[in-house]
Amino acid sequence: VARTASFDRDVVLDALMTTFWTHGFEATSLDALERATGLKRQSLYNAFGDKEAMFLASLAAYGEQVGRPLQALLANDDPRQALQAYLEGHLKILSDADKPAGCLFATCSSELGARDDRLGSQMRVETQASLDALNVIFRRWADQGNLSAEMKPETFAALLTAMVRGIALLARSINDPDILENAVDGALQVLQPSIHVK
Amino acid sequence: VARTASFDRDVVLDALMTTFWTHGFEATSLDALERATGLKRQSLYNAFGDKEAMFLASLAAYGEQVGRPLQALLANDDPRQALQAYLEGHLKILSDADKPAGCLFATCSSELGARDDRLGSQMRVETQASLDALNVIFRRWADQGNLSAEMKPETFAALLTAMVRGIALLARSINDPDILENAVDGALQVLQPSIHVK
Repeated sequence: VARTASFDRDVVLDALMTTFWTHGFEATSLDALERATGLKRQSLYNAFGDKEAMFLASLAAYGEQVGRPLQALLANDDPRQALQAYLEGHLKILSDADKPAGCLFATCSSELGARDDRLGSQMRVETQASLDALNVIFRRWADQGNLSAEMKPETFAALLTAMVRGIALLARSINDPDILENAVDGALQVLQPSIHVK
Repeated sequence: VARTASFDRDVVLDALMTTFWTHGFEATSLDALERATGLKRQSLYNAFGDKEAMFLASLAAYGEQVGRPLQALLANDDPRQALQAYLEGHLKILSDADKPAGCLFATCSSELGARDDRLGSQMRVETQASLDALNVIFRRWADQGNLSAEMKPETFAALLTAMVRGIALLARSINDPDILENAVDGALQVLQPSIHVK
């Protein structure tokens, strides 16, 4: 007889995600995942698979809840407003005292991205996919005459990605919100001259 | 009778540093440290202390060998040349196929910087110290009229720190050297207008 899961999968997944976001992959113990979810490991295994599978499910949930809405902010018709919303959206999440420090994706791509295994491969694929998505957006800006002729779309994509990941990384090791605000203000200040609004 | 260490401490420390640089703190096993150094754990404990102590010694060695020389590149009298040398210096290390991917400090401040323990505290102290050092340099640039009036020294310091850490983070999860070059070129391109050379 198949057992019926007696818990809300989304609530449990949220607790798993928050635990990995707090500690990273390696430092997250099965004990911590049990405590966060209130479930025994066998129930977690049955529902999600092993620790790697729980992590990958958390990463996907983070993409849905955090990554995708942030990227959607770049869809604004006015590219200056889009860029401002995108950077300020990052600042808002990174400053949210109810969330773990930093960005799950930045933290774990740094921790796992150089590994020669399934997790490393997944982090590399997702990093490239997120760069590709920005490339598409900024090529469109360039085609519309919204990107300065001296700024190549792929340069802008790599630079903006490095900036938001770097700001997320600072948020992991700096408690001072002024420093994050400075970094975001500075990013806006130096990037805006590359954007032309007609 | 005190035992005499029969190994070159600097060579062993270099092997420890390279191992932590490759894997981060948590994913570095004592087995890996033994393999990298050719020493048994008891010899390592006698010479350095426990794994945390080996990590902190590695971090200090990394600061000497990598962090300090990079920061010294900002001392050039011409601030545009200084900034270019600083960013290209990061690119050179991050592109060095003989070194582990990324930056030990960026990787481990992301992994450990939010922890409520001795390691977390050390990463926060060092992150703040490196920001403070850049603040001093850029305040001098501002006093000398080398920084645009619209660019606050602390904004420039936070932004540049986020950029180089973010580029280091990309180097961990992207194998394509063109993307790192794009990010560094873009950083130079958007930062240089804030620097005035008289």
